[in-house]
Amino acid sequence: MTSTLDADLTHDAFLGGRLHLWQPRAGYRAGVDPVLLAASVPAKSGQAVLDLGCGVGTAALCLGARVPGLALVGVERQRDYAALAARNGLETFAADLTDLPDAVRYRSFDHVLANPPFFDRDSGHVAADQGREAGRGAETPIAAWIDAAARRLRHKGYLHMIHRAERVPDLLAGAHGRLGSPEIWPLCPRVGKPAELVIFRARKDGRADFRLHFPIILHEGARHERDGESYTPEIQAILRAGAALHL
Amino acid sequence: MTSTLDADLTHDAFLGGRLHLWQPRAGYRAGVDPVLLAASVPAKSGQAVLDLGCGVGTAALCLGARVPGLALVGVERQRDYAALAARNGLETFAADLTDLPDAVRYRSFDHVLANPPFFDRDSGHVAADQGREAGRGAETPIAAWIDAAARRLRHKGYLHMIHRAERVPDLLAGAHGRLGSPEIWPLCPRVGKPAELVIFRARKDGRADFRLHFPIILHEGARHERDGESYTPEIQAILRAGAALHL
Repeated sequence: MTSTLDADLTHDAFLGGRLHLWQPRAGYRAGVDPVLLAASVPAKSGQAVLDLGCGVGTAALCLGARVPGLALVGVERQRDYAALAARNGLETFAADLTDLPDAVRYRSFDHVLANPPFFDRDSGHVAADQGREAGRGAETPIAAWIDAAARRLRHKGYLHMIHRAERVPDLLAGAHGRLGSPEIWPLCPRVGKPAELVIFRARKDGRADFRLHFPIILHEGARHERDGESYTPEIQAILRAGAALHL
Repeated sequence: MTSTLDADLTHDAFLGGRLHLWQPRAGYRAGVDPVLLAASVPAKSGQAVLDLGCGVGTAALCLGARVPGLALVGVERQRDYAALAARNGLETFAADLTDLPDAVRYRSFDHVLANPPFFDRDSGHVAADQGREAGRGAETPIAAWIDAAARRLRHKGYLHMIHRAERVPDLLAGAHGRLGSPEIWPLCPRVGKPAELVIFRARKDGRADFRLHFPIILHEGARHERDGESYTPEIQAILRAGAALHL
């Protein structure tokens, strides 16, 4: 995205129309991942929530659409996306998560959300869209995301992250010594299929053992169909009606 | 176990009677874990297999009962258990896995199996039976098990381990830099329940990304019944007929 002319933007419905977000017509566009992440967060009215690498604000604003009375803050290092997040209604700071402005650094949060870019340099993958990769902060290792979250979390606050399943070793290694009580919910496309994504949760000053939960299954039926309507009822309720994902 | 008098032993049927093993009447007695582990190993006739911490030889001998023509070797540091493994028909060395005898150290293996003790000192748990814990080698950290396996594996050989699900962070950290292509199969007691155990597999010189597979479900029905017959047909076929667990 090189311009914020409205002709370069789309105004898209999320959560069955409960939320509309300005997004760039080209470049990174929110998929289901930040919506599922937001649905998984058991935030309560009055709590403070930080969305690290918020893009146009999808995860934070989806959460705000479900839970009233949250203090929502976003950080996004791409100025164009940060401007769109602000236009979408999120209090947003254009900053790198490794160098947060004082207005964020002097606050603490009950929940931190993060939906990091899926193509990291340290995994050896090549992104299909290098501009998009760079734009979303691909060179920031997972440990730096977790470290930034840990610093901003209140005692007993939670980090909630959605990421590719193959990055689980990096998530667990990154949390080691920084956050406790790590938990993984695999997101499997269908019954019997390996996880493609995971929701990772960890708690500041948590002391519980690691937990590996039963998967959340995204699509019905045993075989792949190119049909967006194949989501399970639980997932449809999230995407089309703003329901919570009860973990 | 302080004696090898036959009165202190039982001779127990495994795999629906395909295998009988001498075990101590008191102390550690094999459960379903080594049987499931053995069922998961895709060994082929002619291959060499090492069972680290083999106890009375359950995992290696269950594998041998299913796959003919394997060269099976066990290592067990408790002399009484090592003697029973030998009596059960396994070529066994009484040794600590961190100090293997030359007869093992100069060999390499296509597969290494390990069913480590479930109560490790480094997890902070207290074992219900301290003697049993010490006997089974609780003070050996997971990384040492993985390191011993990695040293004995042939190029592209596999480690197969079964462990408590909460030890997944230690399994992944222990394999980091020593073995590649890590994979986890969660073992969930029932549909919808968190994993209690996992099968962990990793490959020497492997370069594939981590994979988190769909769980293997042990019991039918949604609620807990104190009924050993509630195993799913797939698990029953393993325990009662020596079938393979097709991962």
